[in-house]
Amino acid sequence: MRKIFLCFLVLLFCANETLHAQPVIKGDMSKITLVIHGGAGTITRENMTPEKEKAYQEALQQALQAGYAVLKKGGTSMDAVEAAIHIMEESPLFNAGKGAVFTNDGKNELDASVMDGKTLKAGAVAGVTVVKSPITLARTIMEASEHVMLAGKGAEQFARERGLEIVDPSYFYTETRFRQLNKAKEEEKVQLDHSGDKGSLDENIFTEGNKFGTVGAVALDAYGNLAAGTSTGGMTNKRWGRIGDAPVIGAGTYANNQTCAVSATGHGEFFIRSVVAYDISALMEYKGISVKQAADEVVMKKLVQRGGEGGVIALDAKGNVAMPFNSEGMYRGYLKADGKPTVLIYK
Amino acid sequence: MRKIFLCFLVLLFCANETLHAQPVIKGDMSKITLVIHGGAGTITRENMTPEKEKAYQEALQQALQAGYAVLKKGGTSMDAVEAAIHIMEESPLFNAGKGAVFTNDGKNELDASVMDGKTLKAGAVAGVTVVKSPITLARTIMEASEHVMLAGKGAEQFARERGLEIVDPSYFYTETRFRQLNKAKEEEKVQLDHSGDKGSLDENIFTEGNKFGTVGAVALDAYGNLAAGTSTGGMTNKRWGRIGDAPVIGAGTYANNQTCAVSATGHGEFFIRSVVAYDISALMEYKGISVKQAADEVVMKKLVQRGGEGGVIALDAKGNVAMPFNSEGMYRGYLKADGKPTVLIYK
Repeated sequence: MRKIFLCFLVLLFCANETLHAQPVIKGDMSKITLVIHGGAGTITRENMTPEKEKAYQEALQQALQAGYAVLKKGGTSMDAVEAAIHIMEESPLFNAGKGAVFTNDGKNELDASVMDGKTLKAGAVAGVTVVKSPITLARTIMEASEHVMLAGKGAEQFARERGLEIVDPSYFYTETRFRQLNKAKEEEKVQLDHSGDKGSLDENIFTEGNKFGTVGAVALDAYGNLAAGTSTGGMTNKRWGRIGDAPVIGAGTYANNQTCAVSATGHGEFFIRSVVAYDISALMEYKGISVKQAADEVVMKKLVQRGGEGGVIALDAKGNVAMPFNSEGMYRGYLKADGKPTVLIYK
Repeated sequence: MRKIFLCFLVLLFCANETLHAQPVIKGDMSKITLVIHGGAGTITRENMTPEKEKAYQEALQQALQAGYAVLKKGGTSMDAVEAAIHIMEESPLFNAGKGAVFTNDGKNELDASVMDGKTLKAGAVAGVTVVKSPITLARTIMEASEHVMLAGKGAEQFARERGLEIVDPSYFYTETRFRQLNKAKEEEKVQLDHSGDKGSLDENIFTEGNKFGTVGAVALDAYGNLAAGTSTGGMTNKRWGRIGDAPVIGAGTYANNQTCAVSATGHGEFFIRSVVAYDISALMEYKGISVKQAADEVVMKKLVQRGGEGGVIALDAKGNVAMPFNSEGMYRGYLKADGKPTVLIYK
């Protein structure tokens, strides 16, 4: 009887210890890596002011730190990707979430997608106007529906049913983007984000560079799992319910633990036709080349030959990073286990 | 002077001959090939009646002949693909155009895509309800817009602006499909096309097999150019603006003269996540394997491992045909230069 009582005490003690112990991260923290982009395009030093540059650098740093904090405390790569993209969706500097470009009808129609490199599960959403975080909706589609891709009013209904944050469409309004729409309409042509504003140095910090202002993130967590995500407002003055590459799995987003995680930014039509994100993975898998070689092959050769402007961020399961772009610049950055962030804008 | 007059007469004669001669097809007619599918799924001999089988065989023959007639008179592979798919869109037997399945809201929301193997241009449409031929809209998007993918009301507006045939949504109504919706709703679950009707042998000829009733075609013309197209109504009882693989370039449709043309049919979510159509092309390009080996690798190995049911039709630039499926059956057929059609249903 005394033995049983002793055992009981020991068990009670152990249970108490387990409840109060710090969580032990069982993964390999030396490989954790986060890579982000905030769009590619005609971003040149000549068109940049010190204030603009500082604003973009600060926003990119903030996004990197938000995602890295997740990885550092043993969170998943998917959580890190979502956290980093939230910051960029909420910043008016980037063409995603608040600060998204306007359609021809004067609306903000948002697209996003995510993919999980371990399960090969994916979620994507196209053309939503009232969901605060399209990247969270894409993730919820992946996790809580049997589907990969939902669009328009139906996707918004799903977001409501799942209790996601719904906002008035005016939440996404920024004066700069609205001016860009009017300018694009005056020019009577579909304008890719704000490429037409190259000369207007004095307008304000949002009006140039960033031709293809999609945002994205890829991450590798301590458990060796890759994840990728992309979020965008698409093209200024877009019409006819146009969908770009951001919500197309294989084009704008792809992740597979066997190869790499990719998020793209650029002239979406070319990226869809070239199946850009998956092509990088396929080159690694079938030709046994590195993530850098594969990303360069697709972005600097194939896309250039086909006239497709833009870039990608790519990350393999060993933490190797590639960030090629064939445009003037790409807002980009990464953070590895050493905790020292790198943020870059120009070539 | 007499010589000049003679020359003039000869020239006149030649010009006259040219004007009245039969058009000479400059391509290689020995390679022309058309391959079609009308959906894959639980199609078994036990569930088939002679009448049903005859109806499907006749419709497939008609689609083959329509596309083949285009190739035979020197038309392009894209024209042949469109002609073959028109027949299947207009037949109530298939889940595309008239005869499409119903959404949870009691609508028919149609998706389609095309890709040109020579130019790598592509067009896709998702969620249209009033456009008579979604495949023609997809082609028009490729040819007459700067975009690849349009969706919903915007895509319908584009169709109107381009003068495409608009129909009342009731055009797509068929009693059988509506009954399937009610049945699916009763079962309170999303049902893939009409997989739940396996037992109801007496209901009518549309109610079984054909679990994933997408239609598609791939063709090789006399000029060595490949083209691919896919058209579908998606899933019975689908909700939330769900988009499957049919309008996703790289998943449901892909074409490249350097490799192959592919159209897929199956559980769309798995086909998107596996980037099925482009993966077959990538395997051929990067591993140097045949279209048959590549299609088998993706459909019979990768998709099976991942639980993705369905099949593809694939055709390389030499006219080699592959039609693998991992489901019970797939409505399929092909026609080569010998003019002898082959139509198959079961394994």
